[in-house]
Amino acid sequence: MHVQLNPLGAMDLLSQLEVDQLKQNANSEIFRLFRNCCLAVLNVGSHTDSSAEIYQQFENFSVNLIARERGIKIELFNPPLNAFVDGQIIKGIHEHLFAVLRDILFYHTQLGVDQNRFDLQNSDHLTHTVFDILRNARVINSSTEPNMIVCWGGHSINEVEYKYTKEVGYQLGLRGLNICTGCGPGAMKGPMKGATIGHSKQRIRHGRYLGLTEPSIIAAEPPNPIVNELVILPDIEKRLEAFVRTAHGIIIFPGGAGTAEELLYLLGIMLHQDNADQVLPVILTGPKQSEAYFLELQSFIEQTLGPAALKLFEVIIDDPALVAQKLKQGCADLRQFRKTVGDAYHFNWSLQIDSDFQHPFAPTHQNMAALDLHLEQDKAKLAANLRRAFSGIVAGNVKDEGIKAIAQHGPFVLSGEPKLMVLMDKLLEAFVAQGRMKLPGSKYIPCYKIAL
Amino acid sequence: MHVQLNPLGAMDLLSQLEVDQLKQNANSEIFRLFRNCCLAVLNVGSHTDSSAEIYQQFENFSVNLIARERGIKIELFNPPLNAFVDGQIIKGIHEHLFAVLRDILFYHTQLGVDQNRFDLQNSDHLTHTVFDILRNARVINSSTEPNMIVCWGGHSINEVEYKYTKEVGYQLGLRGLNICTGCGPGAMKGPMKGATIGHSKQRIRHGRYLGLTEPSIIAAEPPNPIVNELVILPDIEKRLEAFVRTAHGIIIFPGGAGTAEELLYLLGIMLHQDNADQVLPVILTGPKQSEAYFLELQSFIEQTLGPAALKLFEVIIDDPALVAQKLKQGCADLRQFRKTVGDAYHFNWSLQIDSDFQHPFAPTHQNMAALDLHLEQDKAKLAANLRRAFSGIVAGNVKDEGIKAIAQHGPFVLSGEPKLMVLMDKLLEAFVAQGRMKLPGSKYIPCYKIAL
Amino acid sequence: MHVQLNPLGAMDLLSQLEVDQLKQNANSEIFRLFRNCCLAVLNVGSHTDSSAEIYQQFENFSVNLIARERGIKIELFNPPLNAFVDGQIIKGIHEHLFAVLRDILFYHTQLGVDQNRFDLQNSDHLTHTVFDILRNARVINSSTEPNMIVCWGGHSINEVEYKYTKEVGYQLGLRGLNICTGCGPGAMKGPMKGATIGHSKQRIRHGRYLGLTEPSIIAAEPPNPIVNELVILPDIEKRLEAFVRTAHGIIIFPGGAGTAEELLYLLGIMLHQDNADQVLPVILTGPKQSEAYFLELQSFIEQTLGPAALKLFEVIIDDPALVAQKLKQGCADLRQFRKTVGDAYHFNWSLQIDSDFQHPFAPTHQNMAALDLHLEQDKAKLAANLRRAFSGIVAGNVKDEGIKAIAQHGPFVLSGEPKLMVLMDKLLEAFVAQGRMKLPGSKYIPCYKIAL
Amino acid sequence: MHVQLNPLGAMDLLSQLEVDQLKQNANSEIFRLFRNCCLAVLNVGSHTDSSAEIYQQFENFSVNLIARERGIKIELFNPPLNAFVDGQIIKGIHEHLFAVLRDILFYHTQLGVDQNRFDLQNSDHLTHTVFDILRNARVINSSTEPNMIVCWGGHSINEVEYKYTKEVGYQLGLRGLNICTGCGPGAMKGPMKGATIGHSKQRIRHGRYLGLTEPSIIAAEPPNPIVNELVILPDIEKRLEAFVRTAHGIIIFPGGAGTAEELLYLLGIMLHQDNADQVLPVILTGPKQSEAYFLELQSFIEQTLGPAALKLFEVIIDDPALVAQKLKQGCADLRQFRKTVGDAYHFNWSLQIDSDFQHPFAPTHQNMAALDLHLEQDKAKLAANLRRAFSGIVAGNVKDEGIKAIAQHGPFVLSGEPKLMVLMDKLLEAFVAQGRMKLPGSKYIPCYKIAL
Repeated sequence: MHVQLNPLGAMDLLSQLEVDQLKQNANSEIFRLFRNCCLAVLNVGSHTDSSAEIYQQFENFSVNLIARERGIKIELFNPPLNAFVDGQIIKGIHEHLFAVLRDILFYHTQLGVDQNRFDLQNSDHLTHTVFDILRNARVINSSTEPNMIVCWGGHSINEVEYKYTKEVGYQLGLRGLNICTGCGPGAMKGPMKGATIGHSKQRIRHGRYLGLTEPSIIAAEPPNPIVNELVILPDIEKRLEAFVRTAHGIIIFPGGAGTAEELLYLLGIMLHQDNADQVLPVILTGPKQSEAYFLELQSFIEQTLGPAALKLFEVIIDDPALVAQKLKQGCADLRQFRKTVGDAYHFNWSLQIDSDFQHPFAPTHQNMAALDLHLEQDKAKLAANLRRAFSGIVAGNVKDEGIKAIAQHGPFVLSGEPKLMVLMDKLLEAFVAQGRMKLPGSKYIPCYKIAL
Repeated sequence: MHVQLNPLGAMDLLSQLEVDQLKQNANSEIFRLFRNCCLAVLNVGSHTDSSAEIYQQFENFSVNLIARERGIKIELFNPPLNAFVDGQIIKGIHEHLFAVLRDILFYHTQLGVDQNRFDLQNSDHLTHTVFDILRNARVINSSTEPNMIVCWGGHSINEVEYKYTKEVGYQLGLRGLNICTGCGPGAMKGPMKGATIGHSKQRIRHGRYLGLTEPSIIAAEPPNPIVNELVILPDIEKRLEAFVRTAHGIIIFPGGAGTAEELLYLLGIMLHQDNADQVLPVILTGPKQSEAYFLELQSFIEQTLGPAALKLFEVIIDDPALVAQKLKQGCADLRQFRKTVGDAYHFNWSLQIDSDFQHPFAPTHQNMAALDLHLEQDKAKLAANLRRAFSGIVAGNVKDEGIKAIAQHGPFVLSGEPKLMVLMDKLLEAFVAQGRMKLPGSKYIPCYKIAL
Repeated sequence: MHVQLNPLGAMDLLSQLEVDQLKQNANSEIFRLFRNCCLAVLNVGSHTDSSAEIYQQFENFSVNLIARERGIKIELFNPPLNAFVDGQIIKGIHEHLFAVLRDILFYHTQLGVDQNRFDLQNSDHLTHTVFDILRNARVINSSTEPNMIVCWGGHSINEVEYKYTKEVGYQLGLRGLNICTGCGPGAMKGPMKGATIGHSKQRIRHGRYLGLTEPSIIAAEPPNPIVNELVILPDIEKRLEAFVRTAHGIIIFPGGAGTAEELLYLLGIMLHQDNADQVLPVILTGPKQSEAYFLELQSFIEQTLGPAALKLFEVIIDDPALVAQKLKQGCADLRQFRKTVGDAYHFNWSLQIDSDFQHPFAPTHQNMAALDLHLEQDKAKLAANLRRAFSGIVAGNVKDEGIKAIAQHGPFVLSGEPKLMVLMDKLLEAFVAQGRMKLPGSKYIPCYKIAL
Repeated sequence: MHVQLNPLGAMDLLSQLEVDQLKQNANSEIFRLFRNCCLAVLNVGSHTDSSAEIYQQFENFSVNLIARERGIKIELFNPPLNAFVDGQIIKGIHEHLFAVLRDILFYHTQLGVDQNRFDLQNSDHLTHTVFDILRNARVINSSTEPNMIVCWGGHSINEVEYKYTKEVGYQLGLRGLNICTGCGPGAMKGPMKGATIGHSKQRIRHGRYLGLTEPSIIAAEPPNPIVNELVILPDIEKRLEAFVRTAHGIIIFPGGAGTAEELLYLLGIMLHQDNADQVLPVILTGPKQSEAYFLELQSFIEQTLGPAALKLFEVIIDDPALVAQKLKQGCADLRQFRKTVGDAYHFNWSLQIDSDFQHPFAPTHQNMAALDLHLEQDKAKLAANLRRAFSGIVAGNVKDEGIKAIAQHGPFVLSGEPKLMVLMDKLLEAFVAQGRMKLPGSKYIPCYKIAL
């Protein structure tokens, strides 16, 4: 199969110099990145979350760029067939492919990161980079009201939880709120589907379904085509920063290691004293049957980051309308706060994010083993380290490089203060038992070992 | 509770003369009609399909019109709370209320029917009336391509069937097709929900979800708020004519008496020799488990209307994508046909509809008893009479006047040729056994008696 | 030359019954009316204002309607070539043709006037008719702010005056105000051209250029293609009522008999005691060199309708920005007034218009001679009679029937109180001397005689 | 006077880093550039074309940037009052100010030119820069048809010529063509005004009025507010490249030194053998009374660049409709050509522009004196040198630095081959005699001396 895709308007205009740079390097790192992200986007509806497996399955997929009278076309060879209806590519996926092209070119060519335009040790420069990627993708808009709800949660959740995420999305949509998730299935898809129906009933024709992803996770959690604004951030840390700076409210549904990573990131930042006045509503919610999950998580937070951390969020069980009402009110409060301090509605410039949370963490066996995991350290530092630990586990579970590293070297070994190790072990065991680590269909073999 | 609703733009402009005429008659037949339709529209999500019960439950609901600087507002007193989110009316329902006002005023005031402008014995005049109501509601548009799929089927269907209707809607939506139903839950809601997701993935921001209803059924089958174009036709016969003249394809899902009425109406018309060349794809479809239902229906059709009638539709079991593909192709064929004969895409002027199918049938005990039900008559006549019989049963099941008549005089008695009576009895028994006559929650007591 | 024009969307949907009614009567009065209005609209840019001459020149022009898959097409035979650019009809004129079709069908078929649906002696019914025609043409919109400035003035004005009307239009456009005129050249075109540039600079993409005309004047004063909302009212009286009920402000530029008719109509109404509280800014304006004209007009008003009439308007000489500022403020005042009394922004329901100003006046020699022209009568009555006198002179100058009547029977004879006759004679002499009666290019031969 | 201007949507989003960089340098070169361009844009309608004079007149004007909840506001102190209507800034000028901010930030901050991201000796890199500026300004759009007509001509032309440029613009607008000029009055404003009316009649609501300017000319030729897409290129050479790569057709009206510069630039490029197959319609046109002007120009071209150069354009006298027809056809031919060679409609990548025409020429006395002005050189080289000579004269006439240099050092001295000097002298004398060098209101004192 061989398909040529037209550019989709002003957003897709490329310079010949850019195309030449990308094509010259058809075997280069960047072109491979582009090809892999295209494949991930096309492979929506896949029933595996192993990036390695997906890349293997579609070895003979390739992609090309060709200049035509209306701009640069993307040419696909042997694409996954899921992306097509009666031989026509689904429009949403068509858009996603050009989003991939746009973001990869922007980061690696236009932004000039590779040409050292920025000081990547400088926190302001890193934040600027995140902003610039989002701006270039046109997902921040100064004229809209604060209404973007970031939804985090597992890609592998059970049917009752999935329906619950849809219902929450529906209630958000009925109140005119928009949805941002990390793409992928489960708790990242449910709220968007629900909100689509809610928006439809409220005649909101330009509902926003924003997906923020990054190259190493996109294959495991491909954006579903409802996502109508897709951004590929260059790494997990910039993706997390993008989440918290664009969010006007955050919901955390049940999830596994990735969800824990997100929660720890958020709490680590919010515990910073400079953020004490920040207004950002955070709600953990799930159906009645998931209540135990949240008790477990709260207990882990309390015993690691302390009781102050518990005050940074609210837990609501089995009440989608209440969740939506609280977030609607939270957006209004946030609006008032930003107006008072003169910070932008569309991007939270005033939020302090320490460099601990900004610098990429490479989850190698060595780095994972070297994590400083003991309780008696600054709570933000601890949160940062715990965040890294869970980030590594996500990599080992579903990311291409992580899976390969585990296959070669065996599980990551996490070690540290025994009391903390016990807490982590307990939490991770629960994730495994509840099937939150991987999509159903295979027995989960842990990619980590807790050195108790 | 007391709410004032703003008009919604150009479509809601009323003349003072019209408002005066309507308000002068606040106790009149027409104002009562308006009030009842408003109540029906507000009562979405209700768990009963008995119009009588609904009107009783909301006895103290009332409605008023007030002139303001931006036009005429609708004022509601004691409305059902389902229609509101945090005290704000759902926008879709807000629109439906003004659609009710528009259509009732148009038919009873602007169109001049009550002033005898039209010859209601003249088939052309009746068809003009249907067209004029649709035109005034702005639901026909000469610039769009043929893509309106009418979906008929039961308001009370089981969960597997409901999911199937959603999946079919999804596949239609992915192919850019729009949905028209009779409003209400079940098979009338599922395809719209599915199509909403399909349209979203294809970035179709102006998907059409057309609901055609009439005052006596609207309470039992209130339009769900996804319906973004609502028309209240004055009676069931004009509603059926609106369906077939705007349809570019028809799907029949499993259903009860109402669905049988719709199918018989359609076949009766299509059997007319002047319609032999008409292109109008008709597909009966359902999940695997509903196969028996369709066999039963086909058998009934064959034995009553003859084998020729079977050729007017296709049965597809458990294949939503195939249904959508066939209809997509069918729309293309229809387009070609209309172009060739010079008939409009947006309204099938050339379809011949005999007056037997146009004149309102009042389902009184007397009229029901008098139906000419024997097999040896012109097939179209037979279809027309069978249509009336099922229409009466629908009235007895869910319509206000029908329910009251049954309560007073006992079940309708249907009599005629024994062979036909046996066939009808068998079909109706199956509808009852499968729970298709009424929404779950109560035991169904038949409103009819077959005189075997 | 032979051209077929596509319908232009939802506004052009016709029923077959309507087309049949119109076409059956291809030789009928209504079809002739339709044909003549089409011709007038196509003949834009013509250098004569004699309707009779125009109809004669294009005797072999004809028009037809044909049913096609996208609706009813208008077919033109031997149309004036001015309407075309490189063989393609100008889009604005294309729209005007369908506006003609829409309005003529609406009044003579849909509205049911000819079927006696309305009591044409009843003032409320007449006003409803005006409203219904405007609503059907979709030129009233409940969601817009009060900003429609009606500009009256001569079709034959000199170059300095014309530039002045453009400059006033420009200043109005810069302030976001819209323009309504009676179509035609001169003072009816200048403000629209100016406002187009003003709107462009303010990025107002949906500026409104509303033209209100009627069949007997349309040939002499064809709508220029900037008019993007055209309505053909059935007679001059309904056209005048449409002007004053939709206006949020009125400008009167120098003009001749038609302008005098408009001013007298307006003053006659505003002098009614029920209209004493009405807020409606009226400004007479022109360049420095036209100052004498306004002095003359004011003097005539004062001596006929009395000093109270002078208070109903303001005269501003040579200050376009001030005119626009006053009207901008006037619109704000009007908004406040309408809100307070609950009257609609888009249509002035509360303005009292006596039947004297509503009933059509046929300017026959007999009616003109019979006009009651003496000073000692109710001022409103006097205004109504003077209005009729000037209306007749317009007919004799440029309307088809008027020109023919004058050709056959000689000039109208106006007689009455000598003092009033002297005043009229003086005013009309001035109009003649200033070239305001007819477009330049021929010597003006008066169509009237004042019996002094 | 002190005004704060809201950002205008997504295009105006700035990063704090960018704002900081710009504001830190409030006294820097770049900030001064920004301030001066703002002043120029605000000073529309000015009656002088001397940049030096303008800057002097508004010495106490200043500008600031402030961060607010909806983005970065521009704050103005003591702005020219021409830009305001009743205290409100004209929307078009509001947009122009943000365009200034966007383009200056983009070139000096985002593009990274100052950080040496590009090789400014490399022709491809220079072309990429031009493209990137236009793309960032969103003025190139891959989905539109080729229809952009570049209009060149004098800022100081007589009334007859001005009316003629309006009429040509009107004819272009009637044919759906868009206008690009260098901003400023005269031949740069007329076509836009005319096209606005033409577009209005054709119901083209998104007509494009593209202005390409650069910081040293913007004060002398401020963009009129009809310009709805404004781009500030960094220098005259990139501005010229932007003109020819976005043009689908070029009109040259009568003009002075600047127009001669543009024509020589164009001919110099088109004479390149690699451009022999290029399709680019070029028409020189003016009213009857300007015929002599074009004869003079043609004669100069023939005697300098040879008869081949005459074949690159067509001269049409006094026929606006014919000009528009030829360009409409030319656009269709160009479309076909681009499609055949696979070049983009929206940017002419395949046009060969030698570095002689790309590298900025600084018109110092030294550089002007050093120009190699003799006839026996490569025609393209000669065109490049002549272009530079006229460019210098423009600078001496109206640009700030040029005026100051002339004031200090006296006129530029141009010397070279006597025969060529005589030709130049004659042409320049004609420009002076016809009042094309400066706006009327003062006696023109030449800023050059031809060393004969």
